[in-house]
Amino acid sequence: MTQEQVKNIIRDVPDFPKKGILFKDLTTAFINPDCIEWFKQQLISIYKDKGFTKVIGIESRGFIIASIFANEIGAGFVPIRKKGKLPAEVEKESYTKEYGVDTIEIHRDALSADDVVLLHDDLLATGGSMAAAIKLVKKLGVKKIYVNFLVELDDLKGREVLDDDIEVISLIHY
Amino acid sequence: MTQEQVKNIIRDVPDFPKKGILFKDLTTAFINPDCIEWFKQQLISIYKDKGFTKVIGIESRGFIIASIFANEIGAGFVPIRKKGKLPAEVEKESYTKEYGVDTIEIHRDALSADDVVLLHDDLLATGGSMAAAIKLVKKLGVKKIYVNFLVELDDLKGREVLDDDIEVISLIHY
Repeated sequence: MTQEQVKNIIRDVPDFPKKGILFKDLTTAFINPDCIEWFKQQLISIYKDKGFTKVIGIESRGFIIASIFANEIGAGFVPIRKKGKLPAEVEKESYTKEYGVDTIEIHRDALSADDVVLLHDDLLATGGSMAAAIKLVKKLGVKKIYVNFLVELDDLKGREVLDDDIEVISLIHY
Repeated sequence: MTQEQVKNIIRDVPDFPKKGILFKDLTTAFINPDCIEWFKQQLISIYKDKGFTKVIGIESRGFIIASIFANEIGAGFVPIRKKGKLPAEVEKESYTKEYGVDTIEIHRDALSADDVVLLHDDLLATGGSMAAAIKLVKKLGVKKIYVNFLVELDDLKGREVLDDDIEVISLIHY
C-alpha cells in the first residue's frame, strides 16, 4: 500500500457535520486491513528511536491507531476522554469550539515525570482539541511530548495553535 | 501475566458513575503493556480458527482492544458509534438506559453477507448496548456473529438479554 492509495481510500463526505464542510471519513481506511497496517508501519518508521513509554489517544477516533501502536512498541495506552467519562481523579482542560466549550480529561495518575509520550489523534483541523490535550499533558508533567495525526487539513492551519517546542507530524496532508 | 494478575490490576472505583456503584476501571490495564498483550493473546487463542473478516468495536472503550485484535489477525476494524458521529449513511438502533434512551449507529456499507464478525466491548453489565449492537449487525446481515467482552459482571445477568444463538465469551468474570 502507498500513501497515494491510502489517500484515495479515505472517503470524502460532503456537508458533514454541516452544510459546506467536506468531511474526511477515515472509517473506510480503518475497515481496510492494509490501510491499518500502513498507518502502523509509518508510525514505526517515524518514531522507532523515540523510546515512548506511553501512547495517548484522544477520544474516540484517536483510540484506534494509538492503541495498535502502543501494543506494537510495548508502551502503555492512555485515553484522553470527554468530561465525566474517566472514573478516577482527573486533570481537566477546556477549549472553545465553534458552538460552545468542550472539556477533556486525563487521569492524574496516568503519567509521570519520566514518561516520553506520543499524543495521537486521527485528524488535525483547527487544532483546538490537540492544543488542550498538550496543556493537559504538560500540567501532569512528562519528560518529552511528540504529536501525531493520521491526516492534516493544511488550509485550516491548525498546526499554528500547537506549541512551537513540540514536533508535530501528520502522515497524510490535504 | 496471568488472569489473576490482570484482575488485580483492573481498578475498583467506588461511587462511579453514581453513589453505590463499584466501577471496574480498565484504564489501569490499558496503561500496562503486559495487560494489553494478555488481552490480545487471549483473543488469538480463543478465536484463532474463526476466520473473522471484521472486528467491530463499540464506542469508545471497545475501540481499544478491537482495533489491536483486528490488526493482529488482518481483519478490518468497524466502529459502532453514538448517534450523529458517523458521516455516511447509517443504520440505527435505540435502547433504554436507566435514565432515558441511547442510540447507536453503524455505516450501512461497513458489512456484507460474507462477513464473519467479532463484536467487541470492554465490559458486559446489563447488556443493553450489546443487545442493540447485535440487532444493528443483524439488520445489515452477515454470515456469522461472535460476541466478546474483556470483563463480565456476572451478577447483573447481562448475558441473558443477548441472543441465544450467539456465542458470548468474556475474558474475566467478577
